[in-house]
Amino acid sequence: MAFALTLSELARLADGDIVRGGLDSSYTGMAALDAATPGDISFLGNEKYKAQFLATFAGAVLVPRGVSQGPDTTALIAVDNPSLAFAAVVRHFAAAARPFVPGIHPSATVDPSAKLDPEKVSVRPGAVVMAGAVVGDGTDIGPNSVIGEDVVVGRDCLIYANVSIRERCVVGDRVILQPGAVIGSDGYGYEFVNGRHLKIDQVGIVELGDDVEIGANSTIDRARFGKTVIGEGTKIDNLVQIGHNVVIGKHCLVIAQTGMAGSSRLGNYVTVAAQSGVAGHVMVDDKAILGSRTGVTTNLKGGVTYLGNPAQPFMDEQKQKALVRRLPKMLEDLKALKKRGGGF
Amino acid sequence: MAFALTLSELARLADGDIVRGGLDSSYTGMAALDAATPGDISFLGNEKYKAQFLATFAGAVLVPRGVSQGPDTTALIAVDNPSLAFAAVVRHFAAAARPFVPGIHPSATVDPSAKLDPEKVSVRPGAVVMAGAVVGDGTDIGPNSVIGEDVVVGRDCLIYANVSIRERCVVGDRVILQPGAVIGSDGYGYEFVNGRHLKIDQVGIVELGDDVEIGANSTIDRARFGKTVIGEGTKIDNLVQIGHNVVIGKHCLVIAQTGMAGSSRLGNYVTVAAQSGVAGHVMVDDKAILGSRTGVTTNLKGGVTYLGNPAQPFMDEQKQKALVRRLPKMLEDLKALKKRGGGF
Amino acid sequence: MAFALTLSELARLADGDIVRGGLDSSYTGMAALDAATPGDISFLGNEKYKAQFLATFAGAVLVPRGVSQGPDTTALIAVDNPSLAFAAVVRHFAAAARPFVPGIHPSATVDPSAKLDPEKVSVRPGAVVMAGAVVGDGTDIGPNSVIGEDVVVGRDCLIYANVSIRERCVVGDRVILQPGAVIGSDGYGYEFVNGRHLKIDQVGIVELGDDVEIGANSTIDRARFGKTVIGEGTKIDNLVQIGHNVVIGKHCLVIAQTGMAGSSRLGNYVTVAAQSGVAGHVMVDDKAILGSRTGVTTNLKGGVTYLGNPAQPFMDEQKQKALVRRLPKMLEDLKALKKRGGGF
Repeated sequence: MAFALTLSELARLADGDIVRGGLDSSYTGMAALDAATPGDISFLGNEKYKAQFLATFAGAVLVPRGVSQGPDTTALIAVDNPSLAFAAVVRHFAAAARPFVPGIHPSATVDPSAKLDPEKVSVRPGAVVMAGAVVGDGTDIGPNSVIGEDVVVGRDCLIYANVSIRERCVVGDRVILQPGAVIGSDGYGYEFVNGRHLKIDQVGIVELGDDVEIGANSTIDRARFGKTVIGEGTKIDNLVQIGHNVVIGKHCLVIAQTGMAGSSRLGNYVTVAAQSGVAGHVMVDDKAILGSRTGVTTNLKGGVTYLGNPAQPFMDEQKQKALVRRLPKMLEDLKALKKRGGGF
Repeated sequence: MAFALTLSELARLADGDIVRGGLDSSYTGMAALDAATPGDISFLGNEKYKAQFLATFAGAVLVPRGVSQGPDTTALIAVDNPSLAFAAVVRHFAAAARPFVPGIHPSATVDPSAKLDPEKVSVRPGAVVMAGAVVGDGTDIGPNSVIGEDVVVGRDCLIYANVSIRERCVVGDRVILQPGAVIGSDGYGYEFVNGRHLKIDQVGIVELGDDVEIGANSTIDRARFGKTVIGEGTKIDNLVQIGHNVVIGKHCLVIAQTGMAGSSRLGNYVTVAAQSGVAGHVMVDDKAILGSRTGVTTNLKGGVTYLGNPAQPFMDEQKQKALVRRLPKMLEDLKALKKRGGGF
Repeated sequence: MAFALTLSELARLADGDIVRGGLDSSYTGMAALDAATPGDISFLGNEKYKAQFLATFAGAVLVPRGVSQGPDTTALIAVDNPSLAFAAVVRHFAAAARPFVPGIHPSATVDPSAKLDPEKVSVRPGAVVMAGAVVGDGTDIGPNSVIGEDVVVGRDCLIYANVSIRERCVVGDRVILQPGAVIGSDGYGYEFVNGRHLKIDQVGIVELGDDVEIGANSTIDRARFGKTVIGEGTKIDNLVQIGHNVVIGKHCLVIAQTGMAGSSRLGNYVTVAAQSGVAGHVMVDDKAILGSRTGVTTNLKGGVTYLGNPAQPFMDEQKQKALVRRLPKMLEDLKALKKRGGGF
């Protein structure tokens, strides 16, 4: 099984020295000290976990230089910074679990007019790259994903299974698309004529900046004209809906099941927690934080934390929510006052 | 690049006359006057945009007959109705971006028992048409989409990538299914027997009327028996959930992330705004309008605008929401009255 | 057409005796007595439906032994328990609509290192089984679905079209995955370093217990380490989001469009109604019931019905909601009292 590390491979990867343990012992998982089993690698990142370390069942632990004692059956590797070294191991496992395999799988379909280097791009089984598409080196196109006509995908992107990118959309470098994500579906626009909703053609595109991530089964609509933009470094969670002509700035976080209506905008470094909604044509400024289930219906100033529907500053909303729970008591008081004040 | 128009092609398409400009100049995009660049076509639809017109960088502008002056580098085409002419250009671009290519791609799978005319239907790479399915002429089945056993799809439908239509469902003419849409998943039904949830088989179907559109990654469950119905001309946005045995009338609008529970019903011309929910077995009558995040738990009369959870007439809900924000002040008043009235 | 039963086949399937009707008459659907047409089978499960029975247009009806009279054109089959017999017929139709076809379709891709018995597993057109995956006998892998590297799928599972299971996830026996479901997408986790969100690798897995069902386009994130767990017999509806490291117990119901944030937990036999949300690291105990749109932000005791955001015991929430609707009247009273009490 490729998904395993021997102790000596681990030491090399962690840039550390084996204190104790058999060179050929091998490990297939990672876990915290108190959850680890003999097949797992763990780490002692902080003195306060010393007791957990002494009781761990981990097969191997990355420890700070100087530590040489530990549970009898646990191998030890001394490193300069156990947390950083462990992160490197995690990254190795993550990559090993799904190795990059350059080349076009025979069951994939790549249109002859598409531009990609078959020795530097991975096109997985059943994937489809349509006419005129361009795919950068180091990009991995997952099984049964579809790259539409004239789409441009940058370098070192990771596109998982069953992703759809519609025609002419533009994807930056190092973008990650989780399974089932849809990029470039039509915006929702109709004109009401003679009792019927006539479709307004949506001929714009979606542009995803560098280092963007889009969650599983999220949907990003193309613009009517021009483009829907997800700025560099912005991370979007699962089942999020982004409407047409939305513009999201750089390094935002948009959490699961949130929806942004057409032409709404986020500045930079905005956080939108789960199940929130932003109305059409509304702007939320830099570094605003929206709590879960916030409903935004007007422009919001940046640097403030909001909650509620419609959105209010956090403390105002909390105070009102607390008072709603106090309403039965307030009604009682009111009745008592009315009685005392004489019937009216 | 196919996705471009020369000025003379543009004039023909817009049914207009070239006032000014080189016949061979070509244009690859469309934009509003104030956003256009030299590669874009734009239009002067209304006198009030005259100033924008005079300052535009558009490469070509559709103008009303009689206009002959404009920015130096901008070509002009005189037409009877610039808005309508522009809509025709947009439609041309939309179609050109993803041309209809009749035929069955070699990587697609069409069961020999399926009924379709390979010269009039487009089955894109990796698409699958299962046994007994029927597909009408002019229909485009997107890459890696799946048409289940005995499904019937009408004429001139546009099915994008990675769509799933399960067995026996029926799709009308000119239906549009955005990427990842699921038609005919099982309704959610279990019987609780001896501590376990036993599945209630769902053997009905989904029926989509003519001119229906279903958004990206939306899910329409099949009926237990009989059918879940989406009426003619109804447009459903992205990430919408429609439960089993739901019946939606004609020409409704159901916006993103809304959910309709089993056996709920909408009349005709109902609008349901984003992130709303309709409980099971409830009916919303003709021309009702539900604002965003409305929660419907009882039958609602038609022709009224509702808001809130549970749904109330719009003004009632707004008044109450305003009073909730006033609760801190009300509590203060109440305390003052209690003090004055003597301790109780 | 395979999807039809003759009267004699129906009698055998229902374990009953033909009272009346032609042996060769055939039926292609099922319906309730009052909705049935001549092509449908129906049943008389309860004396109180006698009037409906006498007026039905059903082609054939399963009746209790002893009943010999009915509408002139309706065939009758006498059985011991009409409800159970009808359920058997429904199950037959459900299976017939999409027959199990063992074998690997030529357009599917199965990596040579995958372990499955091609004579006992069905791999539908365009499906992909990646390296190291294991698939149990009797399992049906739908068209264009993707089984990732080293995934383990149990026996007799039903995986519909366009499903994605990412690397190393584990699926129990008799699991049903509706179209578009995503199992094992990355958890949403980033570290904020130097103005950028750095991805925290997600190297855990998802484990689905026996008899689990996951709805269409729902998404289940893999754990950072360890595993996200959906317990035996739990049924998850469409468009549900389950975050990383969530642990759901046995026999829970999680209804459409609900979201559970990272590391939240449900006990056994918990019901979460539609469009609810559970915050991260929160626990909901055994047999709790959350009404639609409940928002859970703290641990909740089991065996109680909750509603509201934040969640409260059902009656408390209802009382407060009623009082919110009474706020205009309360304000009026308060104003009257203030007037009487003298200006303050």
